[in-house]
Amino acid sequence: MRQKNKTIDNTGFSNLSAAEANRLSNKDGSFNVKRVGIPFFQRYSILHTLLKMKRKRFILLIVLYYLLVNSIFALIYYIIGVGDLQGIHLGKGWQNELLQAFFFSAQTITTVGYGHIHPTSTLTNIVAALESFTGILTFAVITGLIYARFSRPQAYLKFSENALISPYKNGKGLMFRLSTYKNNHLTDLSAKVILSMHVDEGNGKVTRFFNLPLEIEQISSMAMSWTLVHDINEDSPLYGLNSKQLIENKIEIMAKINGFDDFLFHNVQQRTSYFSSEIIVDAKFETMLGKTEDGSMSIVDLAKLNSYEIVK
Amino acid sequence: MRQKNKTIDNTGFSNLSAAEANRLSNKDGSFNVKRVGIPFFQRYSILHTLLKMKRKRFILLIVLYYLLVNSIFALIYYIIGVGDLQGIHLGKGWQNELLQAFFFSAQTITTVGYGHIHPTSTLTNIVAALESFTGILTFAVITGLIYARFSRPQAYLKFSENALISPYKNGKGLMFRLSTYKNNHLTDLSAKVILSMHVDEGNGKVTRFFNLPLEIEQISSMAMSWTLVHDINEDSPLYGLNSKQLIENKIEIMAKINGFDDFLFHNVQQRTSYFSSEIIVDAKFETMLGKTEDGSMSIVDLAKLNSYEIVK
Amino acid sequence: MRQKNKTIDNTGFSNLSAAEANRLSNKDGSFNVKRVGIPFFQRYSILHTLLKMKRKRFILLIVLYYLLVNSIFALIYYIIGVGDLQGIHLGKGWQNELLQAFFFSAQTITTVGYGHIHPTSTLTNIVAALESFTGILTFAVITGLIYARFSRPQAYLKFSENALISPYKNGKGLMFRLSTYKNNHLTDLSAKVILSMHVDEGNGKVTRFFNLPLEIEQISSMAMSWTLVHDINEDSPLYGLNSKQLIENKIEIMAKINGFDDFLFHNVQQRTSYFSSEIIVDAKFETMLGKTEDGSMSIVDLAKLNSYEIVK
Amino acid sequence: MRQKNKTIDNTGFSNLSAAEANRLSNKDGSFNVKRVGIPFFQRYSILHTLLKMKRKRFILLIVLYYLLVNSIFALIYYIIGVGDLQGIHLGKGWQNELLQAFFFSAQTITTVGYGHIHPTSTLTNIVAALESFTGILTFAVITGLIYARFSRPQAYLKFSENALISPYKNGKGLMFRLSTYKNNHLTDLSAKVILSMHVDEGNGKVTRFFNLPLEIEQISSMAMSWTLVHDINEDSPLYGLNSKQLIENKIEIMAKINGFDDFLFHNVQQRTSYFSSEIIVDAKFETMLGKTEDGSMSIVDLAKLNSYEIVK
Repeated sequence: MRQKNKTIDNTGFSNLSAAEANRLSNKDGSFNVKRVGIPFFQRYSILHTLLKMKRKRFILLIVLYYLLVNSIFALIYYIIGVGDLQGIHLGKGWQNELLQAFFFSAQTITTVGYGHIHPTSTLTNIVAALESFTGILTFAVITGLIYARFSRPQAYLKFSENALISPYKNGKGLMFRLSTYKNNHLTDLSAKVILSMHVDEGNGKVTRFFNLPLEIEQISSMAMSWTLVHDINEDSPLYGLNSKQLIENKIEIMAKINGFDDFLFHNVQQRTSYFSSEIIVDAKFETMLGKTEDGSMSIVDLAKLNSYEIVK
Repeated sequence: MRQKNKTIDNTGFSNLSAAEANRLSNKDGSFNVKRVGIPFFQRYSILHTLLKMKRKRFILLIVLYYLLVNSIFALIYYIIGVGDLQGIHLGKGWQNELLQAFFFSAQTITTVGYGHIHPTSTLTNIVAALESFTGILTFAVITGLIYARFSRPQAYLKFSENALISPYKNGKGLMFRLSTYKNNHLTDLSAKVILSMHVDEGNGKVTRFFNLPLEIEQISSMAMSWTLVHDINEDSPLYGLNSKQLIENKIEIMAKINGFDDFLFHNVQQRTSYFSSEIIVDAKFETMLGKTEDGSMSIVDLAKLNSYEIVK
Repeated sequence: MRQKNKTIDNTGFSNLSAAEANRLSNKDGSFNVKRVGIPFFQRYSILHTLLKMKRKRFILLIVLYYLLVNSIFALIYYIIGVGDLQGIHLGKGWQNELLQAFFFSAQTITTVGYGHIHPTSTLTNIVAALESFTGILTFAVITGLIYARFSRPQAYLKFSENALISPYKNGKGLMFRLSTYKNNHLTDLSAKVILSMHVDEGNGKVTRFFNLPLEIEQISSMAMSWTLVHDINEDSPLYGLNSKQLIENKIEIMAKINGFDDFLFHNVQQRTSYFSSEIIVDAKFETMLGKTEDGSMSIVDLAKLNSYEIVK
Repeated sequence: MRQKNKTIDNTGFSNLSAAEANRLSNKDGSFNVKRVGIPFFQRYSILHTLLKMKRKRFILLIVLYYLLVNSIFALIYYIIGVGDLQGIHLGKGWQNELLQAFFFSAQTITTVGYGHIHPTSTLTNIVAALESFTGILTFAVITGLIYARFSRPQAYLKFSENALISPYKNGKGLMFRLSTYKNNHLTDLSAKVILSMHVDEGNGKVTRFFNLPLEIEQISSMAMSWTLVHDINEDSPLYGLNSKQLIENKIEIMAKINGFDDFLFHNVQQRTSYFSSEIIVDAKFETMLGKTEDGSMSIVDLAKLNSYEIVK
């Protein structure tokens, strides 16, 4: 009869997965799970790795690739003999010749091909034909990568940093809120919230998972902001827990939001989690909504997304 | 028992979001909501911004980019000394030398590289190698952008400019209609219509939202046109409202159409809204359907999409 | 009680849409509907037009574009004066000069830029800088287009040319079959079949639409072939109709198949229709399935897709 | 009452499809079905063929294309007369001239265009203009292909090599398990398992298909690993079968997993199958889960994915 004990086992986590010293899910929604036992080169999806990489690192990688491949080809031309490259100034030392070979290589791989330096021997001609072809193919890959990074839809949701246990109805409710913060618009949003909790069931602590039903689980449009509310009634696994117990039980709230980007026509998803230390008991959110002075537009103030006041 | 009072609260709008002087949703389906409290550079999704931009503006931006980056590199060559660029005609004044550096820059960044001008010094060679590389990368980005703009599926739905309150069954019905107007075809369309309304509930006016059920909420194919019909029966929040009340209550009808492009195999969505001033009471649509003379094809006349006649 | 009269009105067709001389839907699933009343330049989705175009026509269009844009630039160079293009052989008549300007233009727009011809005056330099830039941008568009044409998922379903009315259970059934014919594989297929029929309801013939329920409406995988079967029992609108009546009533069967490409991970859809003249009464399909000689593989023989024999 | 006999007929396989000497579905989820009766050039989806091709083969194909197209153009220049290509060294034999024409061709198709060799006659100019244009278009196609290969989402699921019949509840259960093995993350996974079985129904053996219901058919996240469990109770078609019977009946278990890549926001799917010889009776999986020493992270050890021990 009491729903409270109705745990779920389809979270993808094991009941024994409980980390003693850390949360299961990070703030950005990734999990504290490590996969081992797989050879290094099978461990990474090249696509995921290159798309998830920070922008600066990605640019650095491309520049390094350009330098490296040019250096290799410069070396090849040098080994063949730069005398086979008409237009290169000889006799100023090997460093200078290598440098000029490097510049010729750059002119070839980018297909600029000024032509004041050009291959004459069969061998340099072959290498140059190969290099310009390499240039076209690898820049094709880079084009694809840049496009893939660029065109990936994102939810651009900002969550309140804290979840609050606020007065709600005649009891309490768990609340956190979110909004898009860029010029994207989401429709048909749905939310799913899972609670994980350490429970002592006699023979050691195990992790148990619960669905947290929400007062509103779907909204038709992220027009303004969305406050997710879980009613902490008698059926809630959170019922009657105080601040101390939240921490003792290593309460963790994992939320997943799905939506539809109404411009790119693409499904998007974003996850977050609140660890017990991020749950504020007896607090309530201040409004983040307002109006422009002439009353013609509503305002959503994202600076106030996490603004709350302590109650009682 | 009376459904009329059954408001909904999952629209993503707040009940306090009501704009006094304006509609909530614009004709194109965007919302009169402003997001503040976020730093400028986080406020825009570069992808959304560049894809939503008007075509002319986008082309202008690319041209400006081309001019700007060429000017910067021209300046760099000029500072290094155009004497390091073999083939440039010296001695005709700095303006002329800068101009020639600009042309060399253009030849380098586009990888045309005629070669009658070419870098000789180490420094100019490095800059040129960098520039041609920059050219390839940035044109890769532009390629991606153009493709993304180009390949974005769109619903291409045209809505009647007005919604009508027409005779329907033994009472009245709210009607508006729509059709695709290009050579795209949509299947499995569904519609969702929400009404917003200012209601005085004792302590000031608040905005209330209602679902407007439709006689047909889904059609299997946009073969011809689609007239959305909401029966204004006793359960409808529109029941018994006259023209004046529509305006007083700031009635606004927000519609969302989802469909599936049967060629691109992509979901599409389009929204629109009708503000009280766009709702015509006691009018009915004229037919926009016909046949070719030989009877072999049906005709949909989009010029008549908003044609209606006043009744009674 | 009799389902037979239960027409549907969510087909997207109007009941008055009936074409007297033609079918509503073509064999390839497109509709015999014409949209008018829209200005020419708004009538076409450039994306749909360029993607739906036959391959040969598309290639021709690109080649024509290349010739046209080169001719325009050649003309501009000629008007400016080909003397400003160093390396052009003068004095052999304007046709020859124009031709050389054309070749220079081609070298510029493709960014080959051999350099034996190159711009010297400010004006030709500006035009050349513009042309190479134009080349890059338009080839970017063409790249995007080719990719979009190429990467568009397709269902690659082949339907039997005829639908049969075959013995089924103790009565009859409408049957037609389909299979993929390329090395693509579809999973989670579903089918929807609609019947249109001219009915005289007292005041002139109108078109009525009916859902035709299928014995199996979904299959989990297009492993072999799929025969769609509609049981023509007492509830079927086809019940008791003979060959002649099928034609008199302008019976038309419109089918839509949805599936999921299990390699591209993309939804696909294909439609077809059977006009009364394509429905064979009292016939049944011959099997198109077999085995390899060693029994290790099943065979689907697509040449037999429409093989049937007359019964009784 | 006994569900056991409740076969299903929506698998897309025919009951007569039974292969005597082989499994229906391969380990990678592809089917042992051959499509014949279709002309060779319609038999392949170019897109699927080029995307499914092994990486090495694909690169080889591109290199071969480059060599072939260059050879063809070299031949054309040679036939026209290499004397029309200024800068080519004549008089060293036709092999050398052909080779130089090849290098010029490579410089043209990649748009490097050094220019020390360049076309002078009208004919060579036309061919060169055509070649550089060909280069741009075909490299556009290659760019698209590389991108399409690269950006295709994949499930990256690893399945245990064997399915086990393990002690479960008070009876037995069929079990196999899976996990992602790369740095991709899947959410909202669902599984569907079908059993095929040869049954003698009096007049020869036919293949029958059954759904195998799972204890958990959906999980919200592939956080760790997922063990699919089918309870072999009285309603299961596997009930009471021993090792020998599994093989005699040519038992085959076909599984399909669907999920949602939470970074690319794309649906993915992966299939596998277990033939009777891959089903181990009376064995159970060893745990593949653990923790880091400091207890801060859970560990999934993929090397143990198929680790099991024999029971009883």
